Amino acid sequence: MTISASKTQELVIYNSLNGQKELFKPIHNTHVGMYVCGPTVYSDVHLGNCRTFVSFDLVFRYLTYLGYKVRYVRNITDVGHLENDADHGEDKIAKKARLEQLEPMEVVQRHTLNFHSTLRKLNTLPPSIEPTATGHIIEQIEFIKTIINNGFAYEVDGSVYFDVKAFDKEKGYGKLSKRNLEDMENASRALEGQQEKRNPQDFALWKKAEPKHIMRWASPWGQGFPGWHLECSAMSAKYLGDTFDIHGGGMDLKFPHHECEIAQAESCTGHTPVNYWMHANMLTLNGKKMSKSTGNTLMPLDIFERGSDLLEKTYSPSVVRFFMLQAHYRSVMDFSNDALAASEKGYQKLMEAISLLPKIVSDTKDKVKTTGLKVSDWVQSCYDAMNDDFNSPVLIARLFEVVKYINQLYRKEFSITNQDLELLKQTLSSFVFEVLGLQTITNISENESSAIESSDEGKLDIAIQLLIDLRNEARASKDFATSDRIRNQLQEKGIVLKDSREGTTYVLE
Amino acid sequence: MTISASKTQELVIYNSLNGQKELFKPIHNTHVGMYVCGPTVYSDVHLGNCRTFVSFDLVFRYLTYLGYKVRYVRNITDVGHLENDADHGEDKIAKKARLEQLEPMEVVQRHTLNFHSTLRKLNTLPPSIEPTATGHIIEQIEFIKTIINNGFAYEVDGSVYFDVKAFDKEKGYGKLSKRNLEDMENASRALEGQQEKRNPQDFALWKKAEPKHIMRWASPWGQGFPGWHLECSAMSAKYLGDTFDIHGGGMDLKFPHHECEIAQAESCTGHTPVNYWMHANMLTLNGKKMSKSTGNTLMPLDIFERGSDLLEKTYSPSVVRFFMLQAHYRSVMDFSNDALAASEKGYQKLMEAISLLPKIVSDTKDKVKTTGLKVSDWVQSCYDAMNDDFNSPVLIARLFEVVKYINQLYRKEFSITNQDLELLKQTLSSFVFEVLGLQTITNISENESSAIESSDEGKLDIAIQLLIDLRNEARASKDFATSDRIRNQLQEKGIVLKDSREGTTYVLE
Repeated sequence: MTISASKTQELVIYNSLNGQKELFKPIHNTHVGMYVCGPTVYSDVHLGNCRTFVSFDLVFRYLTYLGYKVRYVRNITDVGHLENDADHGEDKIAKKARLEQLEPMEVVQRHTLNFHSTLRKLNTLPPSIEPTATGHIIEQIEFIKTIINNGFAYEVDGSVYFDVKAFDKEKGYGKLSKRNLEDMENASRALEGQQEKRNPQDFALWKKAEPKHIMRWASPWGQGFPGWHLECSAMSAKYLGDTFDIHGGGMDLKFPHHECEIAQAESCTGHTPVNYWMHANMLTLNGKKMSKSTGNTLMPLDIFERGSDLLEKTYSPSVVRFFMLQAHYRSVMDFSNDALAASEKGYQKLMEAISLLPKIVSDTKDKVKTTGLKVSDWVQSCYDAMNDDFNSPVLIARLFEVVKYINQLYRKEFSITNQDLELLKQTLSSFVFEVLGLQTITNISENESSAIESSDEGKLDIAIQLLIDLRNEARASKDFATSDRIRNQLQEKGIVLKDSREGTTYVLE
Repeated sequence: MTISASKTQELVIYNSLNGQKELFKPIHNTHVGMYVCGPTVYSDVHLGNCRTFVSFDLVFRYLTYLGYKVRYVRNITDVGHLENDADHGEDKIAKKARLEQLEPMEVVQRHTLNFHSTLRKLNTLPPSIEPTATGHIIEQIEFIKTIINNGFAYEVDGSVYFDVKAFDKEKGYGKLSKRNLEDMENASRALEGQQEKRNPQDFALWKKAEPKHIMRWASPWGQGFPGWHLECSAMSAKYLGDTFDIHGGGMDLKFPHHECEIAQAESCTGHTPVNYWMHANMLTLNGKKMSKSTGNTLMPLDIFERGSDLLEKTYSPSVVRFFMLQAHYRSVMDFSNDALAASEKGYQKLMEAISLLPKIVSDTKDKVKTTGLKVSDWVQSCYDAMNDDFNSPVLIARLFEVVKYINQLYRKEFSITNQDLELLKQTLSSFVFEVLGLQTITNISENESSAIESSDEGKLDIAIQLLIDLRNEARASKDFATSDRIRNQLQEKGIVLKDSREGTTYVLE
């Protein structure tokens, strides 16, 4: 395996732990371990959740594109996540199961399948491993035993709590969120269900199962279930080792979830679990955080299929993905119909330019020069954008420079050498399809359904090409009634014919 | 919930346990619990495996169609299945991981995703719960403890074996496979790795992990992993109860796997775990069992996309599904290109008849009668077919009676009342799409990709309709060069125009 030094040595990542950009140096040379917090599958993911997963899909894709062998672990939380992210109250999945009269695992199955389906539509690559919390109860129990042995946790009546004060004294608590335990103590109130804890900041590693609780397992402390924070520590350690390269998640997980992960891992192994902490920012709706509990939320299927009062029409998953990548993952991004409509235009412009590429021939005359763009500089500028903490909006700006240039080449305003043309094609294709993970309609059908690929999709091409031929012949024989009719009838239904000197192409709207 | 007595009370199921058809009576009235053995995800499923899952999808669909609320549990075996289905040797998944230098769970993830993708293409419905063996280690350990306490298992050096002789003495071993322990003992040889067992028929419930073994968990007997047969007992009991309605699987699992399940469950709970055992028969290739190890195998993607020396062309998943359903699930079925090509013709004939239905109008005149078919008898005959142990080939024969009739109605050779027409439409649609799970191209795109649904698929209709209009006009003006050209160019690419008195329709090949 070779990783080009010139392209990769400069990759810098903003490390949430230090609040600054740092040169990326993986622990094992060409291998990268990455853990991203996945969904709690008691309901379907909303669009804000999707943005997080698209953001880390970009990271996964770019690292892979650079030549790293990435082991990407993203978990499924199927137990232990209580209401309000608290240490008391009902398990989110068990509650949903009770309300719908289902076995909790039926709830898990339905929302896991929906989650996969949504992320497939958004063309995110599946992680290398997708472990579940219920699938790692023994590992979590073993983890707790070690923490207790090391003096950082205590048992009370069948539950085990992490002793934040003891940990803070020895290792320092609050590194990631820059919180001070003393300030936190002063700010905290007595909360329901806290009476078992030595201190309000302590958090549950294992909770005793009340008699009505369905999801329960045998443990050294009796029947119970693991605390929410624990699964990520146990599973990341199992599949990536005690210290690994990248840990990602949504911004709202920084505290307390990721802070607790650090405390758990350090109290267990004695050293820091993660070298680079990455946090994806929010997608807001009407300027406010998207959230299931407040109802200020939009579901992916609303945009792709069902429609919503917030939208003038539906948009394809590829357009939604493109929209998301037009903001840097660390920036807050506001969602609106206008912004999405603008993205759709941009996306189509980009795809049209790509479809023009096969029609551009390089000048084969002697002494031909490339004019209008220094292609190698442009290529480097694409890498520079992504090497700067995965800056996709800057990369997209670079791509649009070349969209303009392709149209100029097509109109023969500039010339290009064969070598430069090949470099341009290859780079554009790599960054658009492999790195950004965008899809043409053809790409979508390849991924989604072979039945359609082999039947419907190529056939549309053939039918339209035949219509274009018939229209051209009608025009040649001055039968403009027929030629206009073909154009107009297609346009009404979203098939737009585009005429140019080189012939007629079509775009689907 | 209402389940029509007339339709359901006669459902009979062939129970492998007794070797005869029995009236189906679920334990909980309108609820049915069904467990089906899923794949061991160390490689992709071959077409023979797919047949088993399509068979039980038919059972799931028909029970659901009858109004039962079915909890359908199908497991994923991700640990414990050793080479040659034996109690010694290497774990299949760990071996694959070692050969490919992957973490075993990376192997699991890849083949689980591929399995889901293949079954989605074949339009099987996802099970209600899809538990994994590694996700239920604690449950398996608890199960073993009970069996040991009840005197039917013993520990030797960190492994636990089931004591078949002790079980046979008290409960009788071999009920399902009709084997006699004495005969088995006489036939058995001393096998490698058997020295720990009291008797060669004993099987592992828990195996000690050798130092090199990656997949391992803490247990009361030390670090180890569960035996292959155990997971199904533990998971079916957890999600369906100690006794449940239906247990299904491939014929090759009857012995030893299902026999061992019965022994485990009975020795744990004291009573029989399953009321109806169902076994799907093999798909043979060239008259021989399809099997990965012998190389006599065909992968689903070979048929759908890649092609194979055994095939003249590729076939859509819907055709393959239709092909499978043309044999009864308990019959051996031989796979060949000719058989598949014949199925494709039949499938198209069926779909063409369905597409004619909207064009058939009932006669509204007074005193109109339905002639040519007694529709209510035909409806009952469809139920009768499925009520007879899910006899899909007989059902399909009934459907083809009505295909013929639809064509006759279309040619106005018979008349039909409005009421009968509605009944016919509804019944045909239910049995074809809901029960048999067949798909038209339109159905496929709905399930697989909203992007295509909203763009490509409807657009093909529009483009072809415009071509049909242009062709009709060309014919009207005796421009046969143009009209033939439209027809021929489309036909070459698999879009076949079909003329009839009622106008022109098209079929995709």
